[in-house]
Amino acid sequence: MKIALAQLNYHIGNFEQNVSKIKATINKAKEARVDLVVFAELAVCGYPPRDFLEFNDFIKLCSDAINSIAEECNGIAVIVGSPSINPKLEGKNLFNSAYFIADKKVQVICNKSLLPNYDVFDEYRYFEPATSFNTIDFKGYRIALTICEDLWNVDDDPMYPVSPMNIIIKEQPELIINIAASPFSYNHPENRENVLCKNAIKYKIPVFYLNHVGAQTELLFDGGSMVINNRGGVVDELNYYEEDFRIYEAEDVLLNNTAPTHGFSPIALSDNIKYPRIYQALVMGIRDYFHKLGFRKAIIGSSGGIDSAVVLSLAVAALGRENVRAVLMPSIFSSDGSVDDALILGKNLGIACDFIPINSIYDALVTSLHPFFGDMKFDLTEENIQARTRGTILMALSNKFGFILLNTSNKSELAVGYGTLYGDMCGGLSVIGDVYKTEVIQLANYINRSEEIIPQNILTKPPSAELRHDQKDSDSLPDYEVLDRILFQYIEERKGPKEIIALGFEEELVLRILKMVNINEYKRHQTPPILRISSKAFGTGRRLPIVAKYLS
Amino acid sequence: MKIALAQLNYHIGNFEQNVSKIKATINKAKEARVDLVVFAELAVCGYPPRDFLEFNDFIKLCSDAINSIAEECNGIAVIVGSPSINPKLEGKNLFNSAYFIADKKVQVICNKSLLPNYDVFDEYRYFEPATSFNTIDFKGYRIALTICEDLWNVDDDPMYPVSPMNIIIKEQPELIINIAASPFSYNHPENRENVLCKNAIKYKIPVFYLNHVGAQTELLFDGGSMVINNRGGVVDELNYYEEDFRIYEAEDVLLNNTAPTHGFSPIALSDNIKYPRIYQALVMGIRDYFHKLGFRKAIIGSSGGIDSAVVLSLAVAALGRENVRAVLMPSIFSSDGSVDDALILGKNLGIACDFIPINSIYDALVTSLHPFFGDMKFDLTEENIQARTRGTILMALSNKFGFILLNTSNKSELAVGYGTLYGDMCGGLSVIGDVYKTEVIQLANYINRSEEIIPQNILTKPPSAELRHDQKDSDSLPDYEVLDRILFQYIEERKGPKEIIALGFEEELVLRILKMVNINEYKRHQTPPILRISSKAFGTGRRLPIVAKYLS
Repeated sequence: MKIALAQLNYHIGNFEQNVSKIKATINKAKEARVDLVVFAELAVCGYPPRDFLEFNDFIKLCSDAINSIAEECNGIAVIVGSPSINPKLEGKNLFNSAYFIADKKVQVICNKSLLPNYDVFDEYRYFEPATSFNTIDFKGYRIALTICEDLWNVDDDPMYPVSPMNIIIKEQPELIINIAASPFSYNHPENRENVLCKNAIKYKIPVFYLNHVGAQTELLFDGGSMVINNRGGVVDELNYYEEDFRIYEAEDVLLNNTAPTHGFSPIALSDNIKYPRIYQALVMGIRDYFHKLGFRKAIIGSSGGIDSAVVLSLAVAALGRENVRAVLMPSIFSSDGSVDDALILGKNLGIACDFIPINSIYDALVTSLHPFFGDMKFDLTEENIQARTRGTILMALSNKFGFILLNTSNKSELAVGYGTLYGDMCGGLSVIGDVYKTEVIQLANYINRSEEIIPQNILTKPPSAELRHDQKDSDSLPDYEVLDRILFQYIEERKGPKEIIALGFEEELVLRILKMVNINEYKRHQTPPILRISSKAFGTGRRLPIVAKYLS
Repeated sequence: MKIALAQLNYHIGNFEQNVSKIKATINKAKEARVDLVVFAELAVCGYPPRDFLEFNDFIKLCSDAINSIAEECNGIAVIVGSPSINPKLEGKNLFNSAYFIADKKVQVICNKSLLPNYDVFDEYRYFEPATSFNTIDFKGYRIALTICEDLWNVDDDPMYPVSPMNIIIKEQPELIINIAASPFSYNHPENRENVLCKNAIKYKIPVFYLNHVGAQTELLFDGGSMVINNRGGVVDELNYYEEDFRIYEAEDVLLNNTAPTHGFSPIALSDNIKYPRIYQALVMGIRDYFHKLGFRKAIIGSSGGIDSAVVLSLAVAALGRENVRAVLMPSIFSSDGSVDDALILGKNLGIACDFIPINSIYDALVTSLHPFFGDMKFDLTEENIQARTRGTILMALSNKFGFILLNTSNKSELAVGYGTLYGDMCGGLSVIGDVYKTEVIQLANYINRSEEIIPQNILTKPPSAELRHDQKDSDSLPDYEVLDRILFQYIEERKGPKEIIALGFEEELVLRILKMVNINEYKRHQTPPILRISSKAFGTGRRLPIVAKYLS
């Protein structure tokens, strides 16, 4: 039996395009005499469809899509994900389903049992968990058809009381097919491989795993679909960050004897794996955001600092230099060095750089406010006025010419609220809002790996917002090396103050930082969507109350 | 047996304050010789604690709070909500629990079975559903102790496959105590009463129902705790929108014979019930937002339009006129009428009105952009520049003086994207972002019920953003009467285009409006939190992808 894995980039709610892509792939598979072609979880509507699932009209379009796909299924079988309607009156109205289609008809529907409802996932919001299971017999093989999380309950501290494969295995299937929607984080590929290998070893059968690829607003799907043999060895892996299509002979996979490549203990990710991954994921994230929304051109405020330098570089990689525009908006507090650095960067990237000094606008604002401010001293207010003036200019260019403004805030700033709401926090998409400052520097080094794109001076000068004379980030923030390590413990590891202090950090500093994180929740509530590259990004995966007192 | 219902306003994560409030109430109850005092769902930490529940440190503080409360429980029993740790390794780590405390010790912990995970609720994100149930025997009574949603599975199309009370009733309890966290929407009080009455009738025992009161950022808890007899008649109802404490003799409730007050069919809510409710809920929402965050003073851009007039009136009711400041920021497009209207309104409300014309700032911005815009014609860009200039001024005043900026966008505007991101969409809190334009007018009429606070001219003139000469909302939007009805069908009723057209609306108009709603998801992603007064508000209860193609 020839099985094809079709790793595609879907567009949420774009049924016409998704179905036509699926059909074209089915026809390609037919030409290659494939017996069974596998598409991803909720492929027909794209993942995650979120509350569109609450519209009967949307569900009807999913069902129409399945019917249309079934028309192509002569001489070939198809597995494809789509919601299906729960026939029982009890429980939620929908299942998250895998359709097995052959002879132009839906033959079997397998429903997802384990519904992830943590971090960015909300599946229990929409779906009823399956409590009964079935297998598929096709071309002499018995197939255990499962959906993503169904295979993820293999740890010692399982999140779910049941493991569907423990039940399905009693039917003696010869292979597992798992259709998934497993979003990227920089340490996720190893987790994913581990989980799939554990399943193959535990149930002693191969696993055909098919993931999404492409960005869905903040969620990045990195592909990396794979085939694992019954020893837990990786037979093959599809490409990462791009569509792919590969064909396997089931007999060959059953006979394959490749040994598992690594153990199952946590792996310390080396920087030369981590940063290329983050780079490629962010480039894909920018590209899909623009292309799926029908935009081509980006605009970015270029300060001469490292954050905007990295975002400009990523945008050029994603959209082409002809589609990226940098805007320099110096104030009286901007150093000559910063302007020069921004200009050299623009030259290195080969992009257009516009120059719009903000002094006259700033003066007009301060003059208008003078009757109210009188002799009150220069403070955060005047700093924010500069940032908001820049935001207004960038948005005006965006409005006039149809550019999308890319936001350049990093995760460290967003965490502690070191940024101006409606100023430098503006933008349609936050590119590095899930990248800590120390990681931004590493990313810059990676961008410079073969030639100096980001001028060395940008990498070495002390970070500064340049909103007052001789300002340095270190005036108000601890050293980023320390800050980022404390933030990581609080955000990614969800450690409390006592636990973080026990790691050897100074108590007063820890309490000060945690308080900054918590009281700035109101700012993060109004940020653009943030491309997610870590296991815990700000945004939909981290939900905190704005009005609260804990650690604040 | 004397049962007290303690309807309190908690502060999320403010353990010190919550525990001291609970203890003071216990002591008040002791003085009144109460046998059992009942506090709300997750009272110790406040509701909803959201991802704070993922911190072991936070859970430890909940447990400490329970121990501290138990110290007071001599000669009195207490029921109080708190998370508890799931002792099993399988499943989620926590339960949403009701603690029964007596003789200074936790005697019984009852866990919530039905975990709401729709709209604003995310309980399955944190909690394992209970699958076993127990009752409490106290002072000769057997009590069925349930938590909120546990009683809500009484419809013909139930959302959950099990109803805990169907199991618990076999133990022959004599009364139900239900501790809840049931947020307000203007049509929710009747739903709530219906559900509780249905339970009382179905199980033929009284229900003691205890709700939260007070605002938690966007969620408004209206109180309205109540006691229902075994016929489904309402014995008593606690106050709405404020803390309350009442004592009942269980014997009296068991003998009470009051008949049910209304049937169980949906009720068409009359305007003279609806608008006072919305008014009181919004006033409470503003007040708690400020007071729980430790702020006193609000600033609001006053355009002379109805939206800012209503928000100013609500802010004065919530914070006092000495704490509300209106800012008039006319441009060359502002009519004299609007300025006059805003001044009269300010006078009627007795608040300070500042006057900051934006022409010189607008000119400085346009001049700076002229090298790029050249002779391109005035368009949305220049309109947005005005709105963003106003946003910058308001935020500067907010920064300098510590005012909180209240946002004045209404639900109709937010729905169709008729507003400027970083301009009139600025603010710490959106007061009427869940109130349609036609409802804003009704609310204004309610505000004027005994004297003309909002000048009649504001109520009668055609709505205009006044961002270009002779602009009217009706230039770009359909009549609000029609628009709001279509929006209601799409947003609250989740009807698709075919279903809405079938109601008699013009096809082209419906498709245009639905498209406007969907393509403006990116703007709503960056709005302030919106006080929720309807069954479907923008924000955490409505989760849609930004990059998507459905109906766009």
